[in-house]
Parts: sequence; structure tokens; C-alpha cells
Amino acid sequence: MTQSDITIEQLERIGHENAEYVVSRIRSVPGFPKEGIIFRDFMPVLSDARALRLLLEGMQSALPVPADSFDTIAGLEARGFLFGPALAAHLGKGFLAIRKAGKLPPQTIGESYDLEYGTASVEVETNLVHPGERVLIVDDLIATGGTAKAAADLIVKAGGVVVGFSFVMELIGLDGLSHLGGLPTSSLVSMPA
Amino acid sequence: MTQSDITIEQLERIGHENAEYVVSRIRSVPGFPKEGIIFRDFMPVLSDARALRLLLEGMQSALPVPADSFDTIAGLEARGFLFGPALAAHLGKGFLAIRKAGKLPPQTIGESYDLEYGTASVEVETNLVHPGERVLIVDDLIATGGTAKAAADLIVKAGGVVVGFSFVMELIGLDGLSHLGGLPTSSLVSMPA
Repeated sequence: MTQSDITIEQLERIGHENAEYVVSRIRSVPGFPKEGIIFRDFMPVLSDARALRLLLEGMQSALPVPADSFDTIAGLEARGFLFGPALAAHLGKGFLAIRKAGKLPPQTIGESYDLEYGTASVEVETNLVHPGERVLIVDDLIATGGTAKAAADLIVKAGGVVVGFSFVMELIGLDGLSHLGGLPTSSLVSMPA
Repeated sequence: MTQSDITIEQLERIGHENAEYVVSRIRSVPGFPKEGIIFRDFMPVLSDARALRLLLEGMQSALPVPADSFDTIAGLEARGFLFGPALAAHLGKGFLAIRKAGKLPPQTIGESYDLEYGTASVEVETNLVHPGERVLIVDDLIATGGTAKAAADLIVKAGGVVVGFSFVMELIGLDGLSHLGGLPTSSLVSMPA
């Protein structure tokens, strides 16, 4: 059973019944982490063997660019770690970890971005990005696009080339995709912010 | 070239040359995160497509129990997220995320454990652990074993059964494995603490 406010979109590529099965495992939690927010929990997707396999198949089917047009998949701590390496291994690529400031050993390069209150900073190990390396950025969710844009700016600063973005979920109405420089993007499912 | 203080051990199951290739990608960083510590960075393993594939093959080859003796793989935020879901997908299992306190939506169940200074707490979503579910715990590193034991106690508290532990790296001399209740364990490589 599909949750009524979630649009399946590109996940349909794995078949309607399969897509509905994956979406049925997304749990919507009103009021978390604070009042007025509906948290979309995809841990129940991961914890189900069939749904996890289908999710990875969906990400592979909906890549925003051909698989031979990038060398590496980059993902952000912590939820981007959940499927980035799995997708990378599936596609025969390497995985580049983007971590919160202070977690990676030197030498690192960092990029700050604005949060609702204050700023945050993400880092990558400088010597793991080769000059001109073509990178696909994956993340669980695009909302305003601030985190994804910081990740892309970071890859460029480190000498790489960002070829596109692959998201599992997209919150509609926040105009997040418009902050990504016109690069190819994909998202498997979308829902109201 | 193998780093001289790293023992390949169970990683040899993927072949000596392959094992040496993976180990050659582990970067040892003295003085991080503080003086006197040698940080073992396995991000360069993940960022290399061949090494990532071999690492997952190594984890699969060295499982401490047969693959049909567990239902689910559990892994800890953040580094356990890097290969837990990838290994789970590879084996046709689900992945159960163990997160730091406050990150998962309710209902959760938690377990505290001691750190060098103070305590930390990890949580799991209660409804994602089925009664009697057989769980293999994976993590990047076993040192004193405190985190792994907390993860195991958490799974049991949530109604599951822990069948064993699979680690990528083991620090020798800290007696970590002795804190894991005599359950089957494996570690791919080991090195002095």
C-alpha cells in the first residue's frame, strides 16, 4: 500500500508493485524531531531484505547520468553512508566519504553551509579526490538543497568534477533542485515538505 | 605492499595478493585524533573500487557464522553504516541501524556505555527488531569492545538474538573480544593498539 502523500515517480522503473512495496516501508512520523515536521524514516526500508535490494535497484535504474560517466560516488555522513557504498559496490565504483568537520584525519579540505540556526561544515580527505575525478553525489533526502550544494562545492574545491546528484527522497515545494547549478539530478520518491 | 604492523589474518581468504592490496590502502595516521594514537583510516579502501569490492568479499568470506544462521545485519553510526548495508544487500539480508541517541524517531530503546571520559548512548527503533530475530553485528573496529557490547546488549533488550560479530579491524592487546560473551567473532586484519 502506497502512502497517499508520497509520489513514486522514478522508483516506478523497478515496477509498480515493487515501488509500492518500498514506499510502504517508509514510515512517516509527525512531530519528529520537532512539532510541525513530518519525519520520513527509511530505516524500515533498509531493515527489510527485499526492500533494501529494491531500493538499490531503484537507485541504479534512476541514475541521473550514465554509470560510465562518473568514477566515484560521494555520500554524506551519516545517512548517505547507508546506501552510498552499497550503490558504489553494485556499480563497480569507489565511495568517497564526506564527513562532519573534525572526523577525518589530515589532510582535509572543508566547506561550510548555513543551517536553520548557525552553520555546519563538512570535510573530505584531500588526497582521495584525484584531479578531474568525476563524482556522483548521493544523499537520502533533498530539502532546501543546502547540504547537497555544500557537498558539490567541496568536491570542486578538492579538484573533482560533480556530474550529478542522486537522492532517495525529495521534499517538494522547497525549490531544492534549483540550487544545484542545473546539474542532472534524480530522486526516487517525492513528498510535501 | 603490506604495512608492516598490520596482520592480514582472515582477509587472506580472498587470496594473498588481494589481501595485500586492500591493506595497502589502509592509511596509518600517527597523532590523530590526539597524540599517542595511530589512527587507521580505511576511507582510502572504500574510495578505491577494487579495494571496496575486495573488502566486501573478505567480510563475506570471513563471516563468523554461516550466512543462513542470521536474518539481519546491524551496524553502528557512522562508520558501521559504510559497509553494513552493502554487506547486507550482498547477502540478501536486511540492515538494522544503531544510531546515537536522539537521531531515530520514536519508539526507540537505548543502551549506555562508558567512554574514556563520560558515557555515550546508542539506540535502535523498537519495532524494527522482531522477537527472536537473529542478528550479526558489524563494525569497522574493535578496540576495548565497549561499543560492540553495548550494541549486543541493545539488540537483546529489543528482543533479538545476537549470533556473532564481524569486524574489519582489530586492535590487539586490548582484550576486546573477551567482552563479547564468547560469541563467534571475525576480524579481517589486526594491528597493535
